Amino acid sequence: MQLLTEKMKNNSQVVSEQILRVDSFINHMIDPEVMLEIGREFARRFAGTQINKVLTVEASGIAVGLTTAMALQAPLLFAKKRKPSTLDQQCYQSQIYSFTKNESVDVFVAKEYLTADDRVLIVDDFLARGEALKGLTKLVEQAGAHLVGVGIVIEKVFQGGGKTLRNSGIRIESLIKVNSLEGGKLHFEE
Amino acid sequence: MQLLTEKMKNNSQVVSEQILRVDSFINHMIDPEVMLEIGREFARRFAGTQINKVLTVEASGIAVGLTTAMALQAPLLFAKKRKPSTLDQQCYQSQIYSFTKNESVDVFVAKEYLTADDRVLIVDDFLARGEALKGLTKLVEQAGAHLVGVGIVIEKVFQGGGKTLRNSGIRIESLIKVNSLEGGKLHFEE
Repeated sequence: MQLLTEKMKNNSQVVSEQILRVDSFINHMIDPEVMLEIGREFARRFAGTQINKVLTVEASGIAVGLTTAMALQAPLLFAKKRKPSTLDQQCYQSQIYSFTKNESVDVFVAKEYLTADDRVLIVDDFLARGEALKGLTKLVEQAGAHLVGVGIVIEKVFQGGGKTLRNSGIRIESLIKVNSLEGGKLHFEE
Repeated sequence: MQLLTEKMKNNSQVVSEQILRVDSFINHMIDPEVMLEIGREFARRFAGTQINKVLTVEASGIAVGLTTAMALQAPLLFAKKRKPSTLDQQCYQSQIYSFTKNESVDVFVAKEYLTADDRVLIVDDFLARGEALKGLTKLVEQAGAHLVGVGIVIEKVFQGGGKTLRNSGIRIESLIKVNSLEGGKLHFEE
């Protein structure tokens, strides 16, 4: 994970003690080489687990999901934040609360694309309080699918979501663990 | 474009005379191999044009944009549909009207990521009336960047957006040209 680590050191910006900006390479402008590295690393960590579907939520999870799906040779399914008019089929639905935006959004996946036969890897760019992950795991539960685990690019460990979800028995692999942004400085481990 | 053509024939669904569903391989569930083929094809068509940035809009443009960016070895920038709290820097902003959703959304890119030095390829999954493309080209204009062209996966030719934009001098490469959905049937050419 040489590229990702270098980018974290040189191109991330600590905005406050809660907020880390990585929008020059992860979630606004995207460095394709970094994304490919991320996808390969998730595939390596979950090798042999027979994942047949990658699940994420729009929008910033899609790039992470796509390179992971490429590496695992599985399709990517992304939950939508609104039920589009063309998606008239039955959907699974759950709610995600965003502390950053201070609002809840409903997320949807079409039932036909997530089934009890699926072995699912959920991926996302960030894990903070775990709200997005909880919403996604509920979709997996509704489908009766098997959740193999979760791949996260950057976990903000100090916000506690990862601990709660691991305690509930979910395997979470975070590539970068940010322990603190205190004093405007990034303290992380791989 | 063998994979894309096969998927169009076997996995797309005509919902009405206006609406074509491709959400089993393009814009809800994504087939990574199809996306890789799409990215390579755009890179081939725009070879030698010195593109240094790929631009799209969230959410369903991101996968198309990422494989194109990979093939062109350039970064992908995706316009956001809201100004996130972490994006406190100056932004370019334009408006996109969606006929499907019957509403306008503002889209944003951070000024630091789109500049007068950039040679930009815009990509998106669909071209219908051209509203999304118009919004994206305005961002390129605001930045004083050079628009090399546009890459579209599926152009709904009968909705007229492509004609208008080509008449304004923009080079548009559409991989699939849907001439009609009349009688619930897909009529397309490559």
